[in-house]
Amino acid sequence: MQHILILGAGKSATVLIDYLLDSASKHGWTITLGDLDQAAAAQKIKGQPHAKAVYFNADDATLVNQYIAAADVVVSLLPAFVHPVIAKACVSLGKHFVSASYVSDAMRALHEEAVKKNIILLNEIGLDPGIDHMSAMSMIDEAHAKGATITAFTSYTGGLIAPESDTNPWQYKFTWNPRNVVLAGQGTAKYLQEHQYKYIPYHKLFQSTVTLEVPDYGVFEGYPNRDSLGYREIYGLEHTGTIIRGTLRKAGFCKAWDVFVQLGMTDDSYKMEQVSSFTWAQFTEAFLPAGQGRLDERIQQFLHITDQEVMDKLRWLGLFEENPIFETPPAETAYSPAQILQRLLESKWGLAAGDKDMCVMMHVMEYTLNQQHFRQYSSMVAIGTDEVHTAMAKTVGLPAAIATERIMLGLMKQTGVVIPVTADIYVPLLQALASEHNIVFRETTVTI
Amino acid sequence: MQHILILGAGKSATVLIDYLLDSASKHGWTITLGDLDQAAAAQKIKGQPHAKAVYFNADDATLVNQYIAAADVVVSLLPAFVHPVIAKACVSLGKHFVSASYVSDAMRALHEEAVKKNIILLNEIGLDPGIDHMSAMSMIDEAHAKGATITAFTSYTGGLIAPESDTNPWQYKFTWNPRNVVLAGQGTAKYLQEHQYKYIPYHKLFQSTVTLEVPDYGVFEGYPNRDSLGYREIYGLEHTGTIIRGTLRKAGFCKAWDVFVQLGMTDDSYKMEQVSSFTWAQFTEAFLPAGQGRLDERIQQFLHITDQEVMDKLRWLGLFEENPIFETPPAETAYSPAQILQRLLESKWGLAAGDKDMCVMMHVMEYTLNQQHFRQYSSMVAIGTDEVHTAMAKTVGLPAAIATERIMLGLMKQTGVVIPVTADIYVPLLQALASEHNIVFRETTVTI
Repeated sequence: MQHILILGAGKSATVLIDYLLDSASKHGWTITLGDLDQAAAAQKIKGQPHAKAVYFNADDATLVNQYIAAADVVVSLLPAFVHPVIAKACVSLGKHFVSASYVSDAMRALHEEAVKKNIILLNEIGLDPGIDHMSAMSMIDEAHAKGATITAFTSYTGGLIAPESDTNPWQYKFTWNPRNVVLAGQGTAKYLQEHQYKYIPYHKLFQSTVTLEVPDYGVFEGYPNRDSLGYREIYGLEHTGTIIRGTLRKAGFCKAWDVFVQLGMTDDSYKMEQVSSFTWAQFTEAFLPAGQGRLDERIQQFLHITDQEVMDKLRWLGLFEENPIFETPPAETAYSPAQILQRLLESKWGLAAGDKDMCVMMHVMEYTLNQQHFRQYSSMVAIGTDEVHTAMAKTVGLPAAIATERIMLGLMKQTGVVIPVTADIYVPLLQALASEHNIVFRETTVTI
Repeated sequence: MQHILILGAGKSATVLIDYLLDSASKHGWTITLGDLDQAAAAQKIKGQPHAKAVYFNADDATLVNQYIAAADVVVSLLPAFVHPVIAKACVSLGKHFVSASYVSDAMRALHEEAVKKNIILLNEIGLDPGIDHMSAMSMIDEAHAKGATITAFTSYTGGLIAPESDTNPWQYKFTWNPRNVVLAGQGTAKYLQEHQYKYIPYHKLFQSTVTLEVPDYGVFEGYPNRDSLGYREIYGLEHTGTIIRGTLRKAGFCKAWDVFVQLGMTDDSYKMEQVSSFTWAQFTEAFLPAGQGRLDERIQQFLHITDQEVMDKLRWLGLFEENPIFETPPAETAYSPAQILQRLLESKWGLAAGDKDMCVMMHVMEYTLNQQHFRQYSSMVAIGTDEVHTAMAKTVGLPAAIATERIMLGLMKQTGVVIPVTADIYVPLLQALASEHNIVFRETTVTI
């Protein structure tokens, strides 16, 4: 093998691109980096002679076939909806494919043909999904190998801000897509607790948190994701009574965020009348029953808020102030509550120069072995190096990059549509992440 | 004119059909009653010689054109989504059209052609919409004629159970489509209060009630409908600071119903795992955090319920009991929470033989006249005669029937797409409803 096609040269791709440029140089491979923005791609390869930057458009079947035909492995950081098209071309041309996206039904449908062609379509090889699968399966397989019965498995991941850049009362800044953060959790969360299916509606989600302490990093809280049960069989947890996957925030975040949920400020389903001419106080007023007195006191009373830290977080955002939402009238006049809230948060939760992000993952597994009950904690914290080499870019990009390298080296034996839940994949990857990139899981076990 | 086509012979159509059979007999007209179920239609016309029952299918363009061509006025009680098809045929054949449904965009688009053809497409001529428009406009026009400035207009309607049949702690039985009752209010309620737009999310809706006393019928509560502002301009309330339209229940209902909303039991967006084999207690358990102790006490604690009447209402439904939801395993195994809740409520809130329903409407208008401030109440209560001649069938069917008669008699002068908000329509109709059918509004005015 000798040629890698990397698709997508966005900001979060830098770590993956750098890794593969180095690896290719070492092994004598060549790389093509394709993006709609050819100049951005050119910048990323920094004039290295064994790499070239090209214009790539996934809608252009001729380009898709031309570049894939020339590659041995295709690794894509393009948006998830494009992947079935790319993977289909890979299958038809007999090329391996790597992505950090969830396996869609369209992807799954390619399994048998990929097996026939003797190629791997490796997906979910980023952070979450990705490192979560690998580290979870490492714990689970180890417990099962000992003969343990796993009674509970919970797993939480968060894209957060590093302690040294943690400078606001929410202890949160936007380290990825702000819109996704504002809309996070909408729908109903489904999980299994003590052998019972549980369904938590969105308006109860941020009240349904657990507290988790991460060694050296303090107290966090986790709220359940929409579907905790998708991997039950894949993880071999068919008989486990409690299975929860969730999202991590610093302690105290969810209680304050719940105020937005309760008021309806995260709703993206309708546009508010005349909101482009409102002040922040008028925006807030729209979600309260008419009344007299100070806005902050009315909210406190309306939602029975007893925690002054919640009120401090809201005041810090300027939600009660008579400052205009738009200094100058915008061209667009119709906005949903979620869009307006996002505007406020982007102005307050933006990353400053030099700010570092942090990715945190924590698994808590309970098991029974020889009539004894144990609780095992496994946690990982990754801190960004700078604004480009963020923790998010590293934890998403490195697993995909290392996996791509291993496919190039002929070290991946599985074929078909694969996710990283088996030891042949996760053992070397976790080892490389730990030893070469300081992405390390710390484990402790206590008896309960 | 001499021929009326009535479409739809369902249970709720009886009052309208009976009225028009009588009227036709008096005036020498003939009637065709069309329905998918020709036998049901035949039963409704009771062998009267001036009427005939036919098979009618709105999907069959030949039938549609054939029957409409033979009529002078078409009155339809078919589902609302069929009305644009029927109305379009009416316009093209130059026939008048009457329905109790809301004006859709497709209906509105027929306005100009209907004006050209000199025909009326009269819609929203039932109870709500219908009697609400007429009685509201009667108050509003009267106030404006006096030179008053209307500062607030709120209007509530409810399909309830008559006092003599009010035999359960919820003071509620299903007098119309149970599914619509279970799903009522989902989305965001939008209204105007003290010159401010207000947006109430579903999970706050049943906590956002007002209390209303209806003379001789006790205390009710109202919660806001999804869109209170659709008729602001039509009603001439552009400068009115408070406009709310809502739904009425007996006092205490909403607080208990809110428990279902808070738990997520009215959610129709997903199917629950294994629910067909659950008991009612297991169903309830699925919406609670895992815990120890009695289910009712855990709910009380989880939702901070202090009102024992709320708990009594829930206990009366059997929600905490270990009785199976399905006595025998059903063919269908996947159900949403809302479907399961509906099953429970249908078993508890069904009408017994002889039960009478009740429709209640209440408007409260505040206005300023000669520097004095007034509040005017206008309320209507209609009680069903029996299971067929329900209050709902009367209040929906009679306005449409009387309007049809008046079109036949050439007494409706408007053309195009019309709703009953002008005096030429509402004065004679309100008068007929009051004098001949005991559908009477009682008004009182107080200074404030």
